[in-house]
Amino acid sequence: MADPGEGDRMGTNRLESFSDGVIAVAITLLVLNITVPPPGTSDLAHFLGHQWPEYLAYMISFLTIGIIWINHHAMIGRLREADHTILILNLLLLMTIGILPFATDLVAKHRHESLAAAIYSGCFTLMAVVFSLLNRQVLIVRGHLLAETLPLDERRQIWRRAASGVVPYVFATALAFVSAYITLGICAAIALYYATPLASTR
Amino acid sequence: MADPGEGDRMGTNRLESFSDGVIAVAITLLVLNITVPPPGTSDLAHFLGHQWPEYLAYMISFLTIGIIWINHHAMIGRLREADHTILILNLLLLMTIGILPFATDLVAKHRHESLAAAIYSGCFTLMAVVFSLLNRQVLIVRGHLLAETLPLDERRQIWRRAASGVVPYVFATALAFVSAYITLGICAAIALYYATPLASTR
Amino acid sequence: MADPGEGDRMGTNRLESFSDGVIAVAITLLVLNITVPPPGTSDLAHFLGHQWPEYLAYMISFLTIGIIWINHHAMIGRLREADHTILILNLLLLMTIGILPFATDLVAKHRHESLAAAIYSGCFTLMAVVFSLLNRQVLIVRGHLLAETLPLDERRQIWRRAASGVVPYVFATALAFVSAYITLGICAAIALYYATPLASTR
Amino acid sequence: MADPGEGDRMGTNRLESFSDGVIAVAITLLVLNITVPPPGTSDLAHFLGHQWPEYLAYMISFLTIGIIWINHHAMIGRLREADHTILILNLLLLMTIGILPFATDLVAKHRHESLAAAIYSGCFTLMAVVFSLLNRQVLIVRGHLLAETLPLDERRQIWRRAASGVVPYVFATALAFVSAYITLGICAAIALYYATPLASTR
Repeated sequence: MADPGEGDRMGTNRLESFSDGVIAVAITLLVLNITVPPPGTSDLAHFLGHQWPEYLAYMISFLTIGIIWINHHAMIGRLREADHTILILNLLLLMTIGILPFATDLVAKHRHESLAAAIYSGCFTLMAVVFSLLNRQVLIVRGHLLAETLPLDERRQIWRRAASGVVPYVFATALAFVSAYITLGICAAIALYYATPLASTR
Repeated sequence: MADPGEGDRMGTNRLESFSDGVIAVAITLLVLNITVPPPGTSDLAHFLGHQWPEYLAYMISFLTIGIIWINHHAMIGRLREADHTILILNLLLLMTIGILPFATDLVAKHRHESLAAAIYSGCFTLMAVVFSLLNRQVLIVRGHLLAETLPLDERRQIWRRAASGVVPYVFATALAFVSAYITLGICAAIALYYATPLASTR
Repeated sequence: MADPGEGDRMGTNRLESFSDGVIAVAITLLVLNITVPPPGTSDLAHFLGHQWPEYLAYMISFLTIGIIWINHHAMIGRLREADHTILILNLLLLMTIGILPFATDLVAKHRHESLAAAIYSGCFTLMAVVFSLLNRQVLIVRGHLLAETLPLDERRQIWRRAASGVVPYVFATALAFVSAYITLGICAAIALYYATPLASTR
Repeated sequence: MADPGEGDRMGTNRLESFSDGVIAVAITLLVLNITVPPPGTSDLAHFLGHQWPEYLAYMISFLTIGIIWINHHAMIGRLREADHTILILNLLLLMTIGILPFATDLVAKHRHESLAAAIYSGCFTLMAVVFSLLNRQVLIVRGHLLAETLPLDERRQIWRRAASGVVPYVFATALAFVSAYITLGICAAIALYYATPLASTR
């Protein structure tokens, strides 16, 4: 930070620490969506079994947020410093992650509803889109802020591979109006795919 | 920390880490204010559409807290170490940030009420005032704790530019008694302004 | 991070910072499970005394999560860098920790129910199992990522000692169907054991 | 960490990061105790004015937790590394901090009740006692882990000065059975005292 009067450039340490904080809180708040049976519930097993969508939604969202964290880490790891546009795009990304506890609760409580599934998957889509915009800024527009020099071609290629992750979420969202369960299934499949070693070669 | 019996001077690392934590939690708790329609809600679309003020308030508060975080980072980044007064003023700043999930929920649930809008905007005003006091302490009163030597004139100028950010919030608060919507509009406009590249030249 | 196109290897700093965040939020959310008597409660002492299982469950879970944090720290401290498998196993570990505020609330509100105690202890078992898998990956499978070279025999021994911690949780879970209180007692005893200097010689 | 098989010694970085996390979450969860008037509340000003004890309790607890954070920082800043006993005592300290959102809500909702005030102040007392025990361990028992060599006499003196902070909380707790308001007043006075420059010469 050469010019102390210039508050817009910053090293990436605190950007990471703040982002880690928001993502960690969002991922942990997901548990508040799982209903504890009120005292006096007569058939506990039935009550708990009946709310399987809450567990499923918890797992999908937890994995998805965790994977976006891994990708976020890799992206920011490439940066030497951040400028105002990167800070603001990162803030928008955190905003789309921060809304996920709501979307997760919504789809768990209304699993038959196409609209709820579409909003759930739509939030993932939005998150993926903002991530791609931020990634594009980091890799292509602000290439001079990268920690390491990379030819533009290679940076474009990295970006395209990452950006293609938006596509399945668009499908999942559109298919919500066929069946909410298809949407949930695709979201689960995407999360599982990225959790396997298959995705580690990206 | 030359004198281990002196607990009041500290490097800024942990000050940043604690502040990042509080701001990250406060910004992420905002999502708890968005109501999930209870199971069995017949017209989900209507219910969700009807609560647009909750989404709007979420976005305004998220952006505003995010921007105060960016400014906080820039301010602390200038410090080499913090003394007791800076720690306490920083704590008061965090207290005004910590109250925002309440103020956000209040204005979202009572959007017609001038009082709710005035409190919402008033909390932003308070936050901006405490930020200015802390900034003044950092830049002017405790100039010897800065990481880099700057002429007093320049420091005063930086402070004045930053402190002028209080003014629009005072207007927004006063205008709540004309219409709560004007207040919300001004708060949204301030957040959007700082999110654009326009603000990055401050 | 030699190859910026390779997002899967990372230093352990941010892995620690994210894990610390999730564990810190989960451990602090436990307090939300303790019921505040509604205003107007006539016999406050009776109400507060009656909910002793909430305090007990808070303490057991707090200690247990705290001890897993200590162990997590020691485990990650051995790593020089993390790969995709380690990141994903760590994410699964955080998922099992993240569910504990739910399981804690469940057992506190339904302390007579074997099922609730079995789920509570079962969550601890699951956490211990995933911890062991991650620990095995760190110590044995990915030995080349360790910060310090250790003979395989010694690494196996460290792992076995750590993995044996799963056993008492399996017993505690099985015994829930004899009495929920036995399960709670064993879970409390495990937490207390690890909190004493006895455990520090592991 | 010379011996990788020894997980009980650790540098203080992650101890600080985890403690910062827990304290930051606890201090920010305090806001959840402030009731948002339900939609349709006719006299918003009356409702909000009537719950002044919630604002007061928020402020006292926020300041008190913030000050314990400042003291915690100073204490850990003296350490070069932590052992098992220090980790466990620190965990117990975090447990007493983690309970404060409950105690704060309790006293705010039952401000006329001596019992509620005694529990509130009692939690502060407990926190101060555990802090003193931890501080004693750091300064006196484990003096060889300090970052800087200090004569035992001086360390004892530092400790005694710090430990004396328990006394006013004991008084505040005992006086709850005279009047809950006296207790609240003393707790507020203690927080304000430590927030002034008076306390910075400790």
